[in-house]
Amino acid sequence: MVRIVGIGCGPQHVTPEASAALRASAYVVAARKGADDPLLAVRREVAAAHGLEVVEVDDPTRDRDPVDYGGAVRDWHAARAAAWSSAIAARAGDPAFLVWGDPALYDSTIRVVTATGLAYEVVAGISAPQLLAARHGIVLHEVGAPVHVTTERRLAEDVAAGQTNVVVMLTSGASLDGLDDWSIWWGANLGAASERLVAGRVGDVRPALADARAAARAEADWVMDVFLLRAPR
Amino acid sequence: MVRIVGIGCGPQHVTPEASAALRASAYVVAARKGADDPLLAVRREVAAAHGLEVVEVDDPTRDRDPVDYGGAVRDWHAARAAAWSSAIAARAGDPAFLVWGDPALYDSTIRVVTATGLAYEVVAGISAPQLLAARHGIVLHEVGAPVHVTTERRLAEDVAAGQTNVVVMLTSGASLDGLDDWSIWWGANLGAASERLVAGRVGDVRPALADARAAARAEADWVMDVFLLRAPR
Repeated sequence: MVRIVGIGCGPQHVTPEASAALRASAYVVAARKGADDPLLAVRREVAAAHGLEVVEVDDPTRDRDPVDYGGAVRDWHAARAAAWSSAIAARAGDPAFLVWGDPALYDSTIRVVTATGLAYEVVAGISAPQLLAARHGIVLHEVGAPVHVTTERRLAEDVAAGQTNVVVMLTSGASLDGLDDWSIWWGANLGAASERLVAGRVGDVRPALADARAAARAEADWVMDVFLLRAPR
Repeated sequence: MVRIVGIGCGPQHVTPEASAALRASAYVVAARKGADDPLLAVRREVAAAHGLEVVEVDDPTRDRDPVDYGGAVRDWHAARAAAWSSAIAARAGDPAFLVWGDPALYDSTIRVVTATGLAYEVVAGISAPQLLAARHGIVLHEVGAPVHVTTERRLAEDVAAGQTNVVVMLTSGASLDGLDDWSIWWGANLGAASERLVAGRVGDVRPALADARAAARAEADWVMDVFLLRAPR
Protein backbone atom coordinates (compact mmCIF):
# COMPACT_ATOMS: atom_id res chain seq x y z
CA MET A 1 0.00 0.00 0.00
CA VAL A 2 1.42 3.36 -1.11
CA ARG A 3 0.41 6.28 1.13
CA ILE A 4 0.21 9.68 -0.57
CA VAL A 5 0.28 12.12 2.32
CA GLY A 6 -0.40 15.83 2.09
CA ILE A 7 1.89 17.75 4.48
CA GLY A 8 0.48 21.22 3.82
CA CYS A 9 3.03 24.02 3.78
CA GLY A 10 5.32 22.55 6.44
CA PRO A 11 5.49 20.50 9.66
CA GLN A 12 2.98 22.86 11.31
CA HIS A 13 0.33 21.43 8.95
CA VAL A 14 0.97 17.71 9.39
CA THR A 15 -2.38 16.48 10.74
CA PRO A 16 -2.80 13.59 13.19
CA GLU A 17 -4.27 11.63 10.24
CA ALA A 18 -1.10 12.29 8.20
CA SER A 19 1.12 11.35 11.15
CA ALA A 20 -0.77 8.06 11.55
CA ALA A 21 -0.28 7.29 7.84
CA LEU A 22 3.45 7.96 8.18
CA ARG A 23 3.76 5.79 11.28
CA ALA A 24 2.15 2.96 9.26
CA SER A 25 4.75 3.36 6.49
CA ALA A 26 8.28 1.94 6.22
CA TYR A 27 10.04 4.72 4.31
CA VAL A 28 9.48 7.91 2.32
CA VAL A 29 10.07 8.23 -1.43
CA ALA A 30 10.93 11.77 -2.56
CA ALA A 31 11.57 13.13 -6.01
CA ARG A 32 14.82 15.12 -6.10
CA LYS A 33 14.55 17.96 -8.61
CA GLY A 34 18.07 19.24 -8.05
CA ALA A 35 20.91 19.25 -5.54
CA ASP A 36 19.35 22.19 -3.67
CA ASP A 37 15.65 21.26 -3.98
CA PRO A 38 14.17 23.47 -1.19
CA LEU A 39 11.08 21.36 -0.55
CA LEU A 40 13.23 18.25 -0.10
CA ALA A 41 14.59 19.73 3.14
CA VAL A 42 11.07 20.01 4.57
CA ARG A 43 10.28 16.43 3.51
CA ARG A 44 13.45 15.24 5.25
CA GLU A 45 12.38 17.10 8.42
CA VAL A 46 8.87 15.55 8.42
CA ALA A 47 10.25 12.07 7.66
CA ALA A 48 12.84 12.33 10.44
CA ALA A 49 10.13 13.41 12.91
CA HIS A 50 8.40 10.10 12.13
CA GLY A 51 11.59 8.00 12.17
CA LEU A 52 11.50 7.34 8.42
CA GLU A 53 14.34 7.10 5.92
CA VAL A 54 13.98 9.23 2.78
CA VAL A 55 14.69 7.41 -0.48
CA GLU A 56 15.56 10.17 -2.93
CA VAL A 57 14.78 9.46 -6.60
CA ASP A 58 16.20 11.79 -9.23
CA ASP A 59 13.32 13.41 -11.06
CA PRO A 60 13.15 12.88 -14.85
CA THR A 61 13.69 16.11 -16.78
CA ARG A 62 10.56 17.78 -18.06
CA ASP A 63 9.88 19.95 -21.08
CA ARG A 64 8.63 23.19 -19.44
CA ASP A 65 7.53 24.87 -22.68
CA PRO A 66 6.22 22.05 -24.87
CA VAL A 67 4.16 22.37 -28.06
CA ASP A 68 1.90 19.56 -26.76
CA TYR A 69 1.36 20.35 -23.04
CA GLY A 70 -0.80 17.30 -22.31
CA GLY A 71 1.58 14.94 -24.13
CA ALA A 72 4.62 16.34 -22.35
CA VAL A 73 2.91 15.89 -18.96
CA ARG A 74 1.97 12.30 -19.84
CA ASP A 75 5.55 11.48 -20.91
CA TRP A 76 6.91 12.98 -17.69
CA HIS A 77 4.39 11.05 -15.57
CA ALA A 78 5.40 7.78 -17.30
CA ALA A 79 9.11 8.44 -16.66
CA ARG A 80 8.40 9.26 -13.01
CA ALA A 81 6.24 6.14 -12.61
CA ALA A 82 9.08 3.95 -13.93
CA ALA A 83 11.64 5.55 -11.59
CA TRP A 84 9.34 5.26 -8.56
CA SER A 85 8.39 1.64 -9.34
CA SER A 86 12.07 0.67 -9.40
CA ALA A 87 12.75 2.36 -6.07
CA ILE A 88 9.74 0.68 -4.43
CA ALA A 89 10.43 -2.78 -5.89
CA ALA A 90 13.92 -2.71 -4.33
CA ARG A 91 12.60 -2.27 -0.78
CA ALA A 92 10.45 -4.06 1.80
CA GLY A 93 7.47 -2.43 3.50
CA ASP A 94 5.03 0.32 2.49
CA PRO A 95 6.30 3.56 0.94
CA ALA A 96 4.89 7.01 1.64
CA PHE A 97 5.05 10.10 -0.55
CA LEU A 98 5.03 13.49 1.17
CA VAL A 99 3.11 15.95 -0.98
CA TRP A 100 3.55 19.69 -0.54
CA GLY A 101 0.07 21.19 -0.05
CA ASP A 102 -2.80 18.83 -0.94
CA PRO A 103 -2.41 15.85 -3.29
CA ALA A 104 -5.82 16.77 -4.84
CA LEU A 105 -4.72 20.16 -6.21
CA TYR A 106 -2.13 20.73 -8.98
CA ASP A 107 0.12 17.90 -7.87
CA SER A 108 1.07 14.92 -10.02
CA THR A 109 1.72 12.31 -7.31
CA ILE A 110 -1.70 10.63 -7.50
CA ARG A 111 -1.54 10.44 -11.32
CA VAL A 112 2.00 9.03 -11.27
CA VAL A 113 1.28 6.45 -8.55
CA THR A 114 -1.84 5.44 -10.50
CA ALA A 115 0.45 4.81 -13.49
CA THR A 116 2.59 2.43 -11.40
CA GLY A 117 -0.45 0.19 -10.87
CA LEU A 118 0.26 0.01 -7.11
CA ALA A 119 -2.60 0.28 -4.60
CA TYR A 120 -2.64 3.60 -2.77
CA GLU A 121 -4.50 5.72 -0.24
CA VAL A 122 -4.47 9.49 0.14
CA VAL A 123 -4.37 11.85 3.13
CA ALA A 124 -5.43 15.47 2.48
CA GLY A 125 -3.18 18.41 3.39
CA ILE A 126 -3.57 22.17 3.78
CA SER A 127 -3.16 23.72 0.32
CA ALA A 128 -1.48 27.03 -0.57
CA PRO A 129 -4.78 28.80 -1.45
CA GLN A 130 -6.11 27.94 2.00
CA LEU A 131 -3.03 29.33 3.72
CA LEU A 132 -3.27 32.41 1.48
CA ALA A 133 -6.86 32.98 2.65
CA ALA A 134 -5.96 32.40 6.30
CA ARG A 135 -3.04 34.85 6.19
CA HIS A 136 -5.20 37.55 4.62
CA GLY A 137 -8.13 36.70 6.93
CA ILE A 138 -10.53 36.32 4.00
CA VAL A 139 -13.11 33.91 2.62
CA LEU A 140 -12.17 32.72 -0.89
CA HIS A 141 -15.54 33.73 -2.40
CA GLU A 142 -18.35 36.21 -1.88
CA VAL A 143 -21.51 35.16 0.01
CA GLY A 144 -23.10 32.17 -1.77
CA ALA A 145 -20.89 32.74 -4.84
CA PRO A 146 -18.37 30.42 -6.56
CA VAL A 147 -14.58 30.35 -6.54
CA HIS A 148 -12.82 29.29 -9.72
CA VAL A 149 -9.42 27.66 -9.18
CA THR A 150 -7.22 27.72 -12.26
CA THR A 151 -3.66 28.02 -13.55
CA GLU A 152 -1.78 31.10 -14.71
CA ARG A 153 -1.67 29.51 -18.18
CA ARG A 154 -5.52 29.51 -18.24
CA LEU A 155 -6.15 32.82 -16.44
CA ALA A 156 -6.80 35.08 -19.45
CA GLU A 157 -9.13 32.51 -21.01
CA ASP A 158 -11.11 32.01 -17.79
CA VAL A 159 -11.46 35.76 -17.19
CA ALA A 160 -12.61 36.22 -20.80
CA ALA A 161 -15.22 33.50 -20.15
CA GLY A 162 -16.68 35.57 -17.33
CA GLN A 163 -14.96 34.36 -14.17
CA THR A 164 -14.83 37.17 -11.58
CA ASN A 165 -13.36 35.40 -8.52
CA VAL A 166 -10.32 33.33 -9.38
CA VAL A 167 -7.57 31.55 -7.43
CA VAL A 168 -4.47 31.28 -9.64
CA MET A 169 -1.88 28.52 -9.20
CA LEU A 170 1.21 27.27 -11.08
CA THR A 171 2.35 30.86 -11.40
CA SER A 172 5.57 32.33 -12.71
CA GLY A 173 4.99 36.07 -12.38
CA ALA A 174 1.69 36.84 -14.14
CA SER A 175 1.47 40.20 -15.92
CA LEU A 176 -2.12 40.90 -14.77
CA ASP A 177 -2.46 43.22 -17.76
CA GLY A 178 -5.97 44.58 -18.10
CA LEU A 179 -6.89 43.74 -14.51
CA ASP A 180 -5.89 47.05 -12.89
CA ASP A 181 -9.28 47.55 -11.21
CA TRP A 182 -9.45 44.02 -9.81
CA SER A 183 -8.54 43.25 -6.20
CA ILE A 184 -5.69 40.86 -5.50
CA TRP A 185 -4.69 38.90 -2.39
CA TRP A 186 -1.24 37.51 -3.07
CA GLY A 187 1.26 35.37 -1.18
CA ALA A 188 4.67 33.84 -1.86
CA ASN A 189 6.55 31.05 -0.04
CA LEU A 190 3.54 30.64 2.25
CA GLY A 191 4.39 28.91 5.52
CA ALA A 192 8.15 29.49 5.10
CA ALA A 193 10.35 32.10 6.80
CA SER A 194 10.57 33.91 3.44
CA GLU A 195 6.77 34.31 3.24
CA ARG A 196 5.53 37.55 1.67
CA LEU A 197 1.97 38.94 1.46
CA VAL A 198 0.51 41.76 -0.62
CA ALA A 199 -3.14 42.82 -1.04
CA GLY A 200 -4.88 45.70 -2.80
CA ARG A 201 -6.09 47.03 -6.14
CA VAL A 202 -3.94 45.43 -8.86
CA GLY A 203 -3.12 48.77 -10.48
CA ASP A 204 -1.91 50.12 -7.14
CA VAL A 205 0.12 47.15 -5.89
CA ARG A 206 1.83 45.97 -9.10
CA PRO A 207 5.25 47.38 -8.04
CA ALA A 208 4.79 45.98 -4.50
CA LEU A 209 4.02 42.55 -5.99
CA ALA A 210 7.18 42.55 -8.10
CA ASP A 211 9.28 43.73 -5.14
CA ALA A 212 7.80 41.13 -2.76
CA ARG A 213 8.29 38.32 -5.28
CA ALA A 214 11.93 39.34 -5.78
CA ALA A 215 12.47 39.63 -2.01
CA ALA A 216 11.02 36.15 -1.37
CA ARG A 217 13.28 34.69 -4.06
CA ALA A 218 16.33 36.57 -2.74
CA GLU A 219 15.71 35.35 0.81
CA ALA A 220 14.93 31.70 0.01
CA ASP A 221 16.62 31.11 -3.38
CA TRP A 222 13.21 29.97 -4.64
CA VAL A 223 9.74 31.46 -4.99
CA MET A 224 6.28 29.91 -5.28
CA ASP A 225 3.30 32.24 -5.28
CA VAL A 226 -0.46 32.00 -5.43
CA PHE A 227 -3.17 34.64 -5.54
CA LEU A 228 -6.88 35.39 -5.50
CA LEU A 229 -8.23 37.88 -8.04
CA ARG A 230 -11.68 39.45 -7.69
CA ALA A 231 -13.38 41.71 -10.21
CA PRO A 232 -14.70 45.13 -9.13
CA ARG A 233 -18.43 45.03 -8.29
CA MET B 1 -7.36 38.63 19.55
CA VAL B 2 -10.05 36.26 18.23
CA ARG B 3 -8.66 33.05 16.73
CA ILE B 4 -10.75 31.46 13.97
CA VAL B 5 -9.44 27.92 13.77
CA GLY B 6 -10.28 25.39 11.08
CA ILE B 7 -10.54 21.90 12.60
CA GLY B 8 -11.15 20.02 9.34
CA CYS B 9 -13.60 17.14 9.57
CA GLY B 10 -12.68 16.08 13.10
CA PRO B 11 -9.88 15.78 15.69
CA GLN B 12 -7.80 13.77 13.17
CA HIS B 13 -7.43 16.99 11.13
CA VAL B 14 -6.42 19.40 13.90
CA THR B 15 -2.99 20.57 12.71
CA PRO B 16 -0.10 21.52 15.02
CA GLU B 17 -0.72 25.12 13.90
CA ALA B 18 -4.37 24.84 15.01
CA SER B 19 -3.37 23.24 18.32
CA ALA B 20 -0.94 26.08 18.98
CA ALA B 21 -3.67 28.65 18.32
CA LEU B 22 -5.98 26.84 20.74
CA ARG B 23 -3.30 26.65 23.43
CA ALA B 24 -2.91 30.44 23.10
CA SER B 25 -6.67 30.96 23.63
CA ALA B 26 -8.65 31.17 26.89
CA TYR B 27 -11.96 29.60 25.81
CA VAL B 28 -13.98 28.45 22.81
CA VAL B 29 -17.14 30.17 21.58
CA ALA B 30 -19.53 27.83 19.73
CA ALA B 31 -22.84 28.56 18.06
CA ARG B 32 -25.51 26.11 19.23
CA LYS B 33 -28.00 25.43 16.43
CA GLY B 34 -30.18 23.09 18.48
CA ALA B 35 -30.16 20.82 21.51
CA ASP B 36 -28.71 17.96 19.43
CA ASP B 37 -26.31 19.94 17.17
CA PRO B 38 -24.03 17.10 15.95
CA LEU B 39 -21.00 19.26 15.17
CA LEU B 40 -21.11 20.77 18.66
CA ALA B 41 -20.07 17.41 20.09
CA VAL B 42 -16.91 17.41 17.96
CA ARG B 43 -16.13 20.98 19.01
CA ARG B 44 -16.50 19.96 22.66
CA GLU B 45 -14.10 17.07 22.08
CA VAL B 46 -11.45 19.28 20.43
CA ALA B 47 -11.82 21.99 23.10
CA ALA B 48 -11.52 19.44 25.92
CA ALA B 49 -8.37 18.00 24.34
CA HIS B 50 -6.87 21.49 24.66
CA GLY B 51 -8.21 22.15 28.17
CA LEU B 52 -10.67 24.81 26.99
CA GLU B 53 -14.20 25.58 28.20
CA VAL B 54 -16.86 25.84 25.46
CA VAL B 55 -19.11 28.88 25.74
CA GLU B 56 -22.24 27.91 23.82
CA VAL B 57 -24.19 30.76 22.22
CA ASP B 58 -27.67 30.05 20.89
CA ASP B 59 -27.64 30.69 17.16
CA PRO B 60 -30.12 33.30 15.83
CA THR B 61 -32.80 31.76 13.63
CA ARG B 62 -32.24 32.10 9.89
CA ASP B 63 -34.66 32.33 6.98
CA ARG B 64 -33.63 29.29 4.90
CA ASP B 65 -35.78 30.17 1.87
CA PRO B 66 -35.70 33.96 1.66
CA VAL B 67 -36.80 36.14 -1.26
CA ASP B 68 -33.62 38.22 -0.79
CA TYR B 69 -30.83 35.67 -0.17
CA GLY B 70 -28.05 38.23 0.32
CA GLY B 71 -30.16 40.38 2.64
CA ALA B 72 -31.20 37.39 4.76
CA VAL B 73 -27.54 36.33 5.10
CA ARG B 74 -26.53 39.86 6.14
CA ASP B 75 -29.32 40.04 8.76
CA TRP B 76 -28.27 36.66 10.15
CA HIS B 77 -24.60 37.70 10.27
CA ALA B 78 -25.53 40.89 12.18
CA ALA B 79 -27.59 38.93 14.72
CA ARG B 80 -24.75 36.44 15.21
CA ALA B 81 -22.18 39.24 15.57
CA ALA B 82 -24.28 40.84 18.34
CA ALA B 83 -24.67 37.52 20.19
CA TRP B 84 -20.95 36.71 19.91
CA SER B 85 -19.86 40.21 20.98
CA SER B 86 -21.93 39.90 24.16
CA ALA B 87 -20.45 36.51 24.99
CA ILE B 88 -16.88 37.75 24.42
CA ALA B 89 -17.36 41.05 26.32
CA ALA B 90 -18.45 39.06 29.40
CA ARG B 91 -15.18 37.11 29.62
CA ALA B 92 -11.44 37.65 30.11
CA GLY B 93 -8.82 36.30 27.69
CA ASP B 94 -8.82 35.50 23.99
CA PRO B 95 -11.70 33.52 22.44
CA ALA B 96 -11.32 30.87 19.75
CA PHE B 97 -13.92 29.71 17.23
CA LEU B 98 -13.64 26.13 15.97
CA VAL B 99 -14.72 26.02 12.34
CA TRP B 100 -15.78 22.76 10.68
CA GLY B 101 -13.67 22.37 7.53
CA ASP B 102 -11.82 25.52 6.45
CA PRO B 103 -12.88 29.05 7.50
CA ALA B 104 -12.13 30.20 3.90
CA LEU B 105 -14.81 28.06 2.22
CA TYR B 106 -18.59 28.44 2.68
CA ASP B 107 -18.37 29.31 6.35
CA SER B 108 -19.64 32.54 7.88
CA THR B 109 -17.35 32.82 10.91
CA ILE B 110 -14.84 35.24 9.32
CA ARG B 111 -17.64 37.50 8.03
CA VAL B 112 -19.40 37.50 11.40
CA VAL B 113 -16.24 38.17 13.42
CA THR B 114 -15.39 40.98 10.97
CA ALA B 115 -18.80 42.47 11.80
CA THR B 116 -17.92 42.49 15.54
CA GLY B 117 -14.99 44.80 14.82
CA LEU B 118 -12.66 42.61 16.91
CA ALA B 119 -9.13 41.81 15.69
CA TYR B 120 -8.77 38.22 14.50
CA GLU B 121 -6.41 35.71 12.96
CA VAL B 122 -7.26 32.58 10.98
CA VAL B 123 -5.86 29.04 10.90
CA ALA B 124 -6.72 26.95 7.82
CA GLY B 125 -8.34 23.50 8.14
CA ILE B 126 -8.92 20.51 5.87
CA SER B 127 -12.13 21.17 3.91
CA ALA B 128 -14.78 18.64 2.89
CA PRO B 129 -13.87 18.75 -0.85
CA GLN B 130 -10.30 17.83 0.06
CA LEU B 131 -11.41 14.87 2.16
CA LEU B 132 -13.77 13.85 -0.66
CA ALA B 133 -10.86 13.81 -3.11
CA ALA B 134 -8.62 11.90 -0.68
CA ARG B 135 -11.23 9.23 -0.01
CA HIS B 136 -11.80 8.69 -3.74
CA GLY B 137 -8.06 8.89 -4.45
CA ILE B 138 -8.55 11.55 -7.12
CA VAL B 139 -7.23 14.95 -8.16
CA LEU B 140 -9.99 17.58 -8.19
CA HIS B 141 -9.27 18.65 -11.79
CA GLU B 142 -7.86 17.27 -15.03
CA VAL B 143 -4.20 17.94 -15.96
CA GLY B 144 -3.62 21.71 -16.11
CA ALA B 145 -7.38 22.37 -16.04
CA PRO B 146 -9.51 24.38 -13.59
CA VAL B 147 -11.87 23.31 -10.82
CA HIS B 148 -14.95 25.42 -10.18
CA VAL B 149 -16.21 25.37 -6.58
CA THR B 150 -19.83 26.42 -6.27
CA THR B 151 -23.09 25.89 -4.38
CA GLU B 152 -25.99 23.63 -5.23
CA ARG B 153 -28.10 26.77 -5.61
CA ARG B 154 -25.75 27.95 -8.41
CA LEU B 155 -25.02 24.58 -10.05
CA ALA B 156 -27.45 24.75 -13.00
CA GLU B 157 -26.36 28.30 -13.83
CA ASP B 158 -22.65 27.43 -13.69
CA VAL B 159 -23.09 24.31 -15.86
CA ALA B 160 -25.11 26.35 -18.38
CA ALA B 161 -22.21 28.85 -18.46
CA GLY B 162 -19.86 26.07 -19.56
CA GLN B 163 -18.31 24.69 -16.39
CA THR B 164 -17.35 21.03 -16.86
CA ASN B 165 -15.53 20.21 -13.60
CA VAL B 166 -17.44 21.40 -10.56
CA VAL B 167 -17.25 20.85 -6.79
CA VAL B 168 -20.70 21.40 -5.28
CA MET B 169 -21.19 22.51 -1.67
CA LEU B 170 -24.13 23.63 0.54
CA THR B 171 -26.12 20.71 -0.81
CA SER B 172 -29.53 19.37 0.15
CA GLY B 173 -30.04 16.48 -2.27
CA ALA B 174 -29.46 17.88 -5.76
CA SER B 175 -31.60 16.39 -8.55
CA LEU B 176 -28.71 16.24 -11.09
CA ASP B 177 -31.34 16.26 -13.85
CA GLY B 178 -29.79 16.44 -17.30
CA LEU B 179 -26.36 15.32 -16.05
CA ASP B 180 -26.80 11.55 -16.57
CA ASP B 181 -23.61 11.20 -18.63
CA TRP B 182 -21.45 13.17 -16.19
CA SER B 183 -19.21 11.45 -13.68
CA ILE B 184 -19.78 12.04 -9.97
CA TRP B 185 -17.58 11.49 -6.92
CA TRP B 186 -19.84 11.91 -3.90
CA GLY B 187 -19.42 11.75 -0.12
CA ALA B 188 -21.58 12.32 2.93
CA ASN B 189 -20.64 12.88 6.59
CA LEU B 190 -16.97 12.77 5.57
CA GLY B 191 -14.64 11.98 8.46
CA ALA B 192 -17.47 10.68 10.69
CA ALA B 193 -18.40 7.05 11.45
CA SER B 194 -21.48 7.50 9.24
CA GLU B 195 -19.37 8.44 6.19
CA ARG B 196 -20.68 7.19 2.83
CA LEU B 197 -18.99 7.31 -0.60
CA VAL B 198 -20.41 6.75 -4.09
CA ALA B 199 -18.75 7.24 -7.50
CA GLY B 200 -19.76 6.54 -11.07
CA ARG B 201 -21.82 7.79 -14.02
CA VAL B 202 -24.64 9.94 -12.64
CA GLY B 203 -27.32 8.04 -14.58
CA ASP B 204 -26.06 4.75 -13.16
CA VAL B 205 -25.56 5.74 -9.51
CA ARG B 206 -28.61 7.96 -8.88
CA PRO B 207 -30.41 5.27 -6.80
CA ALA B 208 -27.15 4.46 -4.94
CA LEU B 209 -26.72 8.17 -4.12
CA ALA B 210 -30.23 8.44 -2.68
CA ASP B 211 -29.75 5.23 -0.67
CA ALA B 212 -26.36 6.31 0.69
CA ARG B 213 -27.65 9.75 1.65
CA ALA B 214 -30.59 8.19 3.49
CA ALA B 215 -28.29 5.66 5.19
CA ALA B 216 -25.90 8.39 6.39
CA ARG B 217 -28.82 10.37 7.80
CA ALA B 218 -30.33 7.29 9.44
CA GLU B 219 -27.04 6.37 11.09
CA ALA B 220 -26.04 9.87 12.29
CA ASP B 221 -29.39 11.75 12.50
CA TRP B 222 -27.81 14.35 10.21
CA VAL B 223 -26.33 14.42 6.71
CA MET B 224 -23.92 16.80 4.97
CA ASP B 225 -22.74 15.90 1.51
CA VAL B 226 -20.40 17.27 -1.14
CA PHE B 227 -19.56 16.10 -4.63
CA LEU B 228 -17.43 16.59 -7.72
CA LEU B 229 -19.14 16.53 -11.11
CA ARG B 230 -17.18 16.14 -14.37
CA ALA B 231 -18.61 16.33 -17.88
CA PRO B 232 -18.00 13.49 -20.34
CA ARG B 233 -15.03 14.14 -22.65
